Amino acid sequence: MPVKLDLQATDPTGARAGFLHSRRGIVPTPVFMPVATHAEVRGMHTGEVWDTGARILLSNTYHLMLRPGATAFRKLGGIHSMMRWDGLVLTDSGGYQIFSLEGSREISERGALFRSIHDNSRHFLSPESSIAMQQDIGSDIMMVLDVCIDSTSPEAETREAMERTHRWAVRSLAARDAVPTEQALFGIVQGGTFPALRRESASFLVELPFEGFAIGGLAVGEGKEARNEMCELSTSQLPSHKPRYLMGVGTPSDLLDCVRRGVDMFDCILPTKMAQQGYAYTFQGVLRTTRDVFRLDGDPLDSSCSCLVCGRYTRGYLHHLLRGKHPLGTRLLAIHNVSHYQMLMGRMRQAILSNTFDALYRELSPKLSRVVKGPN
Amino acid sequence: MPVKLDLQATDPTGARAGFLHSRRGIVPTPVFMPVATHAEVRGMHTGEVWDTGARILLSNTYHLMLRPGATAFRKLGGIHSMMRWDGLVLTDSGGYQIFSLEGSREISERGALFRSIHDNSRHFLSPESSIAMQQDIGSDIMMVLDVCIDSTSPEAETREAMERTHRWAVRSLAARDAVPTEQALFGIVQGGTFPALRRESASFLVELPFEGFAIGGLAVGEGKEARNEMCELSTSQLPSHKPRYLMGVGTPSDLLDCVRRGVDMFDCILPTKMAQQGYAYTFQGVLRTTRDVFRLDGDPLDSSCSCLVCGRYTRGYLHHLLRGKHPLGTRLLAIHNVSHYQMLMGRMRQAILSNTFDALYRELSPKLSRVVKGPN
Repeated sequence: MPVKLDLQATDPTGARAGFLHSRRGIVPTPVFMPVATHAEVRGMHTGEVWDTGARILLSNTYHLMLRPGATAFRKLGGIHSMMRWDGLVLTDSGGYQIFSLEGSREISERGALFRSIHDNSRHFLSPESSIAMQQDIGSDIMMVLDVCIDSTSPEAETREAMERTHRWAVRSLAARDAVPTEQALFGIVQGGTFPALRRESASFLVELPFEGFAIGGLAVGEGKEARNEMCELSTSQLPSHKPRYLMGVGTPSDLLDCVRRGVDMFDCILPTKMAQQGYAYTFQGVLRTTRDVFRLDGDPLDSSCSCLVCGRYTRGYLHHLLRGKHPLGTRLLAIHNVSHYQMLMGRMRQAILSNTFDALYRELSPKLSRVVKGPN
Repeated sequence: MPVKLDLQATDPTGARAGFLHSRRGIVPTPVFMPVATHAEVRGMHTGEVWDTGARILLSNTYHLMLRPGATAFRKLGGIHSMMRWDGLVLTDSGGYQIFSLEGSREISERGALFRSIHDNSRHFLSPESSIAMQQDIGSDIMMVLDVCIDSTSPEAETREAMERTHRWAVRSLAARDAVPTEQALFGIVQGGTFPALRRESASFLVELPFEGFAIGGLAVGEGKEARNEMCELSTSQLPSHKPRYLMGVGTPSDLLDCVRRGVDMFDCILPTKMAQQGYAYTFQGVLRTTRDVFRLDGDPLDSSCSCLVCGRYTRGYLHHLLRGKHPLGTRLLAIHNVSHYQMLMGRMRQAILSNTFDALYRELSPKLSRVVKGPN
């Protein structure tokens, strides 16, 4: 079996801790996957990513099929070899990008026809071609191509998208199983914010031999309450012995909320994205390094943090770098933020194993979304 | 004595190898100093800079006095502490920037009055205030404030600038010696491309108790031949037991040319600047990574290079990163280019010590300025 969840503990809240076994070693869960959209965690090389504690990355099939393209992966030996990454890689299917980012595309039951944003060349993404591309990339966990629609779409449209997602899920499995492979495949639960559809989607998919299940179509503007509700409802329908992955979530406090609801895996661009904007996540809250008040601050970003940045640099130096838009600044914040996410997951995991998750939740939940207004 | 050159060997060509002794350890010469304009070697943290083999950096007083400003250096403990850099730092005086980069400034015998490019605030840079700022920065080697003029200026104007540079050199020394310090101070030979003025400038300055001498006013468009001539003429007038620093030079083949003419120290933004534009320096020539021909190239940038990048990544992956303008690409090229410069200096030094500099010169000089057109 390509990946397998070995559940170690389930907290009364529903939070789970385990190990994801794979051909590339064992990943403790719950786990956060830094995003390497273009086979690059923005500005960081894989040695640095590894040093944050991360052991699994997410990369984007849509972007990679356009550049560097399938030929490059075949010639240069897959994404692990290209990036020199010894951990796992999960690839999304391209579904989200096809439906969200593209203006001119034609979608039919067969798949989606679209044009490259780079050179206007024509490309076709179907359940089968997405799997083929993910096989060229050589990821450890592949995702099925799904139909992503606006979370405010009416029920009929949401049902239609969900049903096509189901038919595509079956085709994706068939494509994956056509050749022997060690690559896992996850199905994606859809259904918008309609509880009945979410239930129907989960119960359809769990009958299929996926190695794990993702919860899709959330974190797209439906609001935190609806997301938590749909997340909880979805996980309640999923088998406990398979990994559950909530796509595209989220802030540190979102992670607390959704681990609590039984999610095992997350990805989000926030740690690197917020770094670009000068924000550092800390266990005391969010710190905007460019605020004047940090200009002469000789303390590290977070004195409880063990990352390279907190070990070496002051807020004052980071303020200088970020204010001047010097590229090292963004990079150091990215290293810190990715490390912070890893430490947060580690603390949650430890709490689940020791039956203290609820206490940790109550301690961190208010802190993490605070704003750090000035020096300690 | 704050810094002292211990000359180990002088090649028949005039190339010199030695050790620069300082309060922060010993630096082998000839040496190339990566540029940390804003207390940052563009995109690289000091751990990475150290790993390239560099042990001395250059930083810019003009930029640092505007941001983060003297207060920040006093509060955060100087540039070594701010950057976490255990090697040496040389600071320029701000002269070049005041004369070259600024539109609105008033210059008199006292100094230069100018406005900040950031907030239009007024600043005054004099020989004394430049030393004071360099003392706040806490560099190991300070430069005198000099008068930089266009290398095509007529002789009378060049003489006037040179003579003021000399008066400012005397004032700089007095300012430095007003308080006990371990910071070295270098004088700057000026005189444009007029041999008589260069000789006069050198003979004036060598009578003053500077710990070293820089050759200024070159590499500003006077052409390679004139630069080499002025460089050779200047070094011939300087005492052999003190370090000689050619400011702002240059390409790898420029370094070969000027080490041959007796220069010990160099600085230049080219390694990081060219990285931004996608160029890698190799011992086979200059390689533009974004060329289509490298898209599927599975070789490292330079198989004779021992840097982190050549040990881990293919030209194909670098092509992908640079073509897509992904920030890791520029960074990896910067690491490689700075490493290449260090390796080049190391090879020159070894050749000088073993009396084979001329052979190395003849081997490398044509190679280094070649263009690498395709895969090996």
